[in-house]
Amino acid sequence: VPGADGERAAIERIRIALPQAPDDETWIGDDAAVVPGPGAGSLLLAADTVVEGVHFDLDLVEASDVGWKVLAVNVSDIAAMGGTPLHALVTIVGASNSVIDGLVSGLAEACSTYDCAVVGGDLSSGPLLVVTVAITGTTGGGRAVLRTGAHAGDQIFVTGPLGRSSAGLRALRAHPGDVGPADLDLVAAYRRPQARVAEGLAASGSGATAMIDISDGLGIDLDRLATASGIGIVLDDAPAACGATYEDALAGGEDYELIFTAADSSAVSRVFAEAGLRPPIRIGECVADRTARLIGGQPLAASGWEHRLR
Amino acid sequence: VPGADGERAAIERIRIALPQAPDDETWIGDDAAVVPGPGAGSLLLAADTVVEGVHFDLDLVEASDVGWKVLAVNVSDIAAMGGTPLHALVTIVGASNSVIDGLVSGLAEACSTYDCAVVGGDLSSGPLLVVTVAITGTTGGGRAVLRTGAHAGDQIFVTGPLGRSSAGLRALRAHPGDVGPADLDLVAAYRRPQARVAEGLAASGSGATAMIDISDGLGIDLDRLATASGIGIVLDDAPAACGATYEDALAGGEDYELIFTAADSSAVSRVFAEAGLRPPIRIGECVADRTARLIGGQPLAASGWEHRLR
Repeated sequence: VPGADGERAAIERIRIALPQAPDDETWIGDDAAVVPGPGAGSLLLAADTVVEGVHFDLDLVEASDVGWKVLAVNVSDIAAMGGTPLHALVTIVGASNSVIDGLVSGLAEACSTYDCAVVGGDLSSGPLLVVTVAITGTTGGGRAVLRTGAHAGDQIFVTGPLGRSSAGLRALRAHPGDVGPADLDLVAAYRRPQARVAEGLAASGSGATAMIDISDGLGIDLDRLATASGIGIVLDDAPAACGATYEDALAGGEDYELIFTAADSSAVSRVFAEAGLRPPIRIGECVADRTARLIGGQPLAASGWEHRLR
Repeated sequence: VPGADGERAAIERIRIALPQAPDDETWIGDDAAVVPGPGAGSLLLAADTVVEGVHFDLDLVEASDVGWKVLAVNVSDIAAMGGTPLHALVTIVGASNSVIDGLVSGLAEACSTYDCAVVGGDLSSGPLLVVTVAITGTTGGGRAVLRTGAHAGDQIFVTGPLGRSSAGLRALRAHPGDVGPADLDLVAAYRRPQARVAEGLAASGSGATAMIDISDGLGIDLDRLATASGIGIVLDDAPAACGATYEDALAGGEDYELIFTAADSSAVSRVFAEAGLRPPIRIGECVADRTARLIGGQPLAASGWEHRLR
């Protein structure tokens, strides 16, 4: 963003490309955005950042994919509390005008999908592309589902099969620009991950005791939940998606499915069915031995981030 | 942040170095923070990012200065709405453990000064240091002071003399590590800028019609306010601080004093005096000719960013 004129023009282009503020709110263009509070209940706050060369490679994905993904992964954090998103702030470092336009088109698609508004942010020059989204959300007066509430005896569920994102990235790297039809869904899972907002609400409504989203891998994220709750975990299996390996499912990460624990399996089935959602997959249970980390009788490694296929 | 263990340890170190959440809130350590909403009135949201080599140079300032500054400039955005800060999210890219510790010590000092809590964020590896803060604030049921409300005939005020930050950076560059006693205050203004929260509240309480903080320079930021309000501006002078040049005051930027417009000068004087604050400096007035940008009868350039002494 070269100089003040370029910055002003870029901000105006971003403002026009995104939904506009209602008359009684102020979004992009002032020192801070002015928006309604969450009404009843708590405010949820989260932030996630993506860095060129660490989280994405513009030789493999479009700038619009990066815009989609950074918004969607923040929405996923809100979903993992049983919340719904409200407003987002976007800061962009080191983007050319064409990259800004691509990012914003992906952000706009994700905002429309998740009913979340970009209300402000910041632009800066810089030697590489870094995009950060901070997001607010609400539980609408209901409780937030933390990582800390799982008890021994709770069942462990995941909202979908795993490993699609890392299998998709592998397919993309093997044949960049020429992905076979069999791999298109996997590549889409990598480029355009879905945040499970409805599933998070259903989990909360069915009495989930703890919840987390899978960003770094089933093993590591479930270890985080177990450590926070002070329980152990015994898994039957990791449900690999069609086209994904067992290792993808266990440690691939970036699935953005939700893991949650609940005492009453029948309530889980009923609430998800009533919401018209795919039934979550039961993958194991919580045990009192807080050191237990087992899958199919073998040790479950808290791995993921280090092996992440980025 | 190398690997999951390093990330977990760093997050735990950050959590311990900052104030802890009350029992009924969740801050660092879950997918999202859970905090009270703003109660009555609107929620203010802002974000600002600082980039190594663009906004700061670790040969000239400490990591703790960077931590202070990125929090303070976000608080300044809330102050420029007539608000007070509530909660902050911090994302850090490309920091070593020692840089993280320095950043966090400065963040903690600023959080204590401005009564604002860091409740979450994100850590990432990366080839250079980028720190982003997103902040929430509230007007406590009162109105937010936008950039858009100035009218012809309103007087223009600034909350303090200008140019200290850019004069301080010049002194620092001339004698790094050996700043003379005469320049210590200027250097402090550059390294540890103050957000004018009490002044923003007083301006709002005295009927300010529009307000903005000086981040990029008096000329450019006042042009933003005038353009947003659809008025012209005629300044008498730019009030340079002791040790700062006229050019510093006009275009140096990073002063984080507030510019505001108000119809009733006597109300401004009275409210600031009652709050025990230094009286704001009247620097000019708003005129109906929306193209007018004058200072002492000469053209006032909307400059700053391009010339910024970083």
